[in-house]
Amino acid sequence: MKVLKATGASFEFETALVGGAAYDDGGHPLPAATLDLCRKSDAVLLGAVGGPRYDQIQPPTLRPEVGALLPLRSELNLYANVRPAKTLRPLMQASPLKMRAGSMVDLVVMRELTGGIYFAKPRERRDNGATAVDTCIYHRHEVERIANRAFQIARQRRREIVSVDKANVLETSRLWREVVTEMAAKNPDVKVTHMLVDNCAMQLIREPAQFDVILTENMFGDILSDEASMITGSLGLLPSASLSDEKAGKVFGLYEPVHGSAPDIAGQGRANPIAAILSTALMLRYSFDDDRGARRIEDAVEHALDAGLRTADIFEKGCNLVSTREMGDAIAFRL
Amino acid sequence: MKVLKATGASFEFETALVGGAAYDDGGHPLPAATLDLCRKSDAVLLGAVGGPRYDQIQPPTLRPEVGALLPLRSELNLYANVRPAKTLRPLMQASPLKMRAGSMVDLVVMRELTGGIYFAKPRERRDNGATAVDTCIYHRHEVERIANRAFQIARQRRREIVSVDKANVLETSRLWREVVTEMAAKNPDVKVTHMLVDNCAMQLIREPAQFDVILTENMFGDILSDEASMITGSLGLLPSASLSDEKAGKVFGLYEPVHGSAPDIAGQGRANPIAAILSTALMLRYSFDDDRGARRIEDAVEHALDAGLRTADIFEKGCNLVSTREMGDAIAFRL
Ligand SMILES: CC(C)[C@H](C(=O)O)[C@@H](O)C(=O)O
Ligand SMILES: CC(C)[C@H](C(=O)O)[C@@H](O)C(=O)O
Repeated sequence: MKVLKATGASFEFETALVGGAAYDDGGHPLPAATLDLCRKSDAVLLGAVGGPRYDQIQPPTLRPEVGALLPLRSELNLYANVRPAKTLRPLMQASPLKMRAGSMVDLVVMRELTGGIYFAKPRERRDNGATAVDTCIYHRHEVERIANRAFQIARQRRREIVSVDKANVLETSRLWREVVTEMAAKNPDVKVTHMLVDNCAMQLIREPAQFDVILTENMFGDILSDEASMITGSLGLLPSASLSDEKAGKVFGLYEPVHGSAPDIAGQGRANPIAAILSTALMLRYSFDDDRGARRIEDAVEHALDAGLRTADIFEKGCNLVSTREMGDAIAFRL
Repeated sequence: MKVLKATGASFEFETALVGGAAYDDGGHPLPAATLDLCRKSDAVLLGAVGGPRYDQIQPPTLRPEVGALLPLRSELNLYANVRPAKTLRPLMQASPLKMRAGSMVDLVVMRELTGGIYFAKPRERRDNGATAVDTCIYHRHEVERIANRAFQIARQRRREIVSVDKANVLETSRLWREVVTEMAAKNPDVKVTHMLVDNCAMQLIREPAQFDVILTENMFGDILSDEASMITGSLGLLPSASLSDEKAGKVFGLYEPVHGSAPDIAGQGRANPIAAILSTALMLRYSFDDDRGARRIEDAVEHALDAGLRTADIFEKGCNLVSTREMGDAIAFRL
């Protein structure tokens, strides 16, 4: 919020509890008032949810992930998860990959976020609990709408989409590939290829530079986007956007860091605020159609890093160790 | 076969067609005679199947993967897929990862191979094809038997199992975690921890040395084992074993390289035979209870590499470029 205010644009902020904090406060991780407020807003900025204290809550539907994050996604129809993974120049040496041709990362994972095995029914026990069942379902229109988004985003980039599936085994993947292939024919200005998910997990390590936009379903996107973020070496710096449909020319979206809540360092002023700050840049870009504002925030972050400011997670010798607040102040100051 | 013969032990070899070759020959990728021969044998050595020529065959059930590989696994009850991923000393610089504490890989992925979303029904289209459905099912006993194998294998290693699931979302994962937790209590000499699949995809890159045995379900194992093999930088060198139950003290198993059929270099003498050769070592170890024989083959491979022999895929300056046949001869010669 400090950074958004520093941009000079005017925002109306309202806050509400979600996840563990909401559970502690009122017994449910996603209070109706929170959901209402999200619905009434133009965009949502989300803090990470979850922590070991909440992992054992019974029933599991009251845990932050299953009880708040997943319902938020489906209730707000946030079907397009956009996760840019980019090696930041000042942090290049933080990547676990060797520096060589093909090891620079500048890609976006477009993950379908409201379908597939995350939401379909039946999800249940049978035989007195001895058998467990999950179901993965995709409808043609679910593939179409996320693919449409991927084409839009690819046009702002290098115009290359790699669609990732497991079409040699899964029926949902065969449908996925069918629909993406049809849409590729209608969007000939974007180059579309297909890759199996196991191969993609390898290629991300072998030569991440080959990827521009990775388009994939919910479960594969969960795994591949985390893999991609680790490859940049800067997990604490990566933002994400979860987008819904356009309403009156505005895209409703929820914005959050890719990293989790890091309960082990809570309250110590050691967390890296950059992923959250870059999420506000995505908010300006996608929900407020303010690409210039987004770039200003992104530049301010890069300048702060260029000036040698580092939170503990990315600290290296010769740099200037700062706290969460100091990093936020430094970035706001540059705006 | 050349290498197995060179060990001096006596084997009866019989060969049969499978995959694309079998399809070309008789119209089906898994002829009944091939399956029968496998059933009658003590162990199966499999060449990689598949290729672009067979990817479009209709119906898909006649393609090498779906029509031969998956039925072989279920018909032969090969539920425990064992994939060691190890950085080979002479090839350390081939890893895409930076050399640093934690980047040496010496792990085994134990992948459940006959259950989960690969085999459960319904797998179908609905709404005139507009909706696709896959189903993931696990039974308690399926988790138990692969976990049992993992405990056995962990005992021959560093006695640490990381069980990987998505228990915060999937019911099958919650069952998986339940069963593995119960079995961990009964096997206190092995340290068991649990990790979410998205986190595991990151940790494999961040610090692969933390893993000894990774135990996971079919689909996650497909993705993570390919990721793990790429991290070693020596995909062409990695063997795998797919094990069934013990019969009269012998473990029936199918052995194959992790890599695919590489149709782009077929017939050129450029393929690396080491993964296939190391698969015969696993065959001796698991199906013929001959750990000494297995080590002899593994040592012969290491010596050939130490002597600077390299096929094209792992060639580097100063080494001696050899063909598929020459590499095989050199390893057999050392036996
Ligand atoms: C917490 C979990 C349910 C969630 C997911 O799997 O989608 C998380 O891993 C993510 O990627 O946002
Ligand atoms: C070819 C395919 C069906 C197979 C799988 O997914 O199991 C392959 O990727 C493997 O890992 O052996």
